[in-house]
Amino acid sequence: MGKKRTTIVLFSGDYDKAMAAYIIANGAAAYDHEVTIFHTFWGINALRKEEPVEVKKGFLEKMFAKMMPRGAENLGLSKMQMLGIGPKMIKHVMEKHNALTLTQLIEMAQEQDIKLVTCTMTMDLLGLQKEELLDGIEYAGVAAYLADAEEGTVNLFI
Amino acid sequence: MGKKRTTIVLFSGDYDKAMAAYIIANGAAAYDHEVTIFHTFWGINALRKEEPVEVKKGFLEKMFAKMMPRGAENLGLSKMQMLGIGPKMIKHVMEKHNALTLTQLIEMAQEQDIKLVTCTMTMDLLGLQKEELLDGIEYAGVAAYLADAEEGTVNLFI
Amino acid sequence: MGKKRTTIVLFSGDYDKAMAAYIIANGAAAYDHEVTIFHTFWGINALRKEEPVEVKKGFLEKMFAKMMPRGAENLGLSKMQMLGIGPKMIKHVMEKHNALTLTQLIEMAQEQDIKLVTCTMTMDLLGLQKEELLDGIEYAGVAAYLADAEEGTVNLFI
Repeated sequence: MGKKRTTIVLFSGDYDKAMAAYIIANGAAAYDHEVTIFHTFWGINALRKEEPVEVKKGFLEKMFAKMMPRGAENLGLSKMQMLGIGPKMIKHVMEKHNALTLTQLIEMAQEQDIKLVTCTMTMDLLGLQKEELLDGIEYAGVAAYLADAEEGTVNLFI
Repeated sequence: MGKKRTTIVLFSGDYDKAMAAYIIANGAAAYDHEVTIFHTFWGINALRKEEPVEVKKGFLEKMFAKMMPRGAENLGLSKMQMLGIGPKMIKHVMEKHNALTLTQLIEMAQEQDIKLVTCTMTMDLLGLQKEELLDGIEYAGVAAYLADAEEGTVNLFI
Repeated sequence: MGKKRTTIVLFSGDYDKAMAAYIIANGAAAYDHEVTIFHTFWGINALRKEEPVEVKKGFLEKMFAKMMPRGAENLGLSKMQMLGIGPKMIKHVMEKHNALTLTQLIEMAQEQDIKLVTCTMTMDLLGLQKEELLDGIEYAGVAAYLADAEEGTVNLFI
């Protein structure tokens, strides 16, 4: 059998899907898996800093940066978005149940040494720059993803 | 090589995605895989009883219970929902081709001893209670999911 | 450990998700994986020929054929569709960065002998016929998918 290793591609930029990814990742790390979350496409938005960062960009890149949510707590839901009421309701019940927010789940992942990787191809494409993302993130491409994925058995695309 | 084991996280509450999950699961069981479907977030709606169940709930929990579809045949589509016409069209062609409905696929899964698990964390969060779900469902958390997933190689997040 | 094998179920009919599937698939093939992409449900639309093909169909089948996008470059986005502006923006930045289009990624997959399979059950259901899809596609069901998937460790549902 392969090593205990969990490798997740986080493609989605939805709050609920990112939560699911980070809950599984943190769980796996707690059970001694080596864990990687490879953020690609909209999944990168979860790692953006909330405050705008001054970087030089072309016109389209500025548009993308403006239209995409900045940071974990600004993501929408995959279901029941309801013009923004859904996320508020979900966060309200999460608080009531002392559930960890996505921001806290990301912090926990970093404390548990989960490897957080961002796809360099998407960074190029959407014109995102490293200064705009959280600290402690690695940058790599599909080859690095596969090197991790092929060594384990729990491979998910979220 | 690992055991023949298929473990599916069903996160989605869409009829078409749930169908895909149950078709793969039933296929795998027919080919001697041990199969688990771990229902989390909106994926739990596929297991709700169609008729409303009288349980005590707070205000937000009642709201969620009301807004989320009750049972397999009330789920929407991930594409071509078209204000409810899409699901009717799909079900019409399914009937014409004698394809199994999601309800029938779930029954078949239970007959084939596929382990149907519901995520206790989501149950808490959305205020769902066991009386509201089908009989014969197991209740567990991410640790139980990982214990199944790490023993097999076919791991999917749907 | 299992063979180096990557097996992807492409369920989604979104341009960005199909791109992610084909980028991972082409990467895996370059690193000596045996790769299969199993197209099911809306994922089949990526393989449709762009020009309409004359085939005999019933009414509902004609409706589906008309409403679903014909071919890779006519797919929408999973996010930021924005009434069709999103896909144009994305394609504009892709061109600027010399990124491969989905059409080119599919051609590369065929050159790398990636097995492109289409789900026969979905073909029946949506009334699609082989003449309407690209050449060089295989047709199979869930049993063939599982036979590939259970021999490898990188299994994704996209």
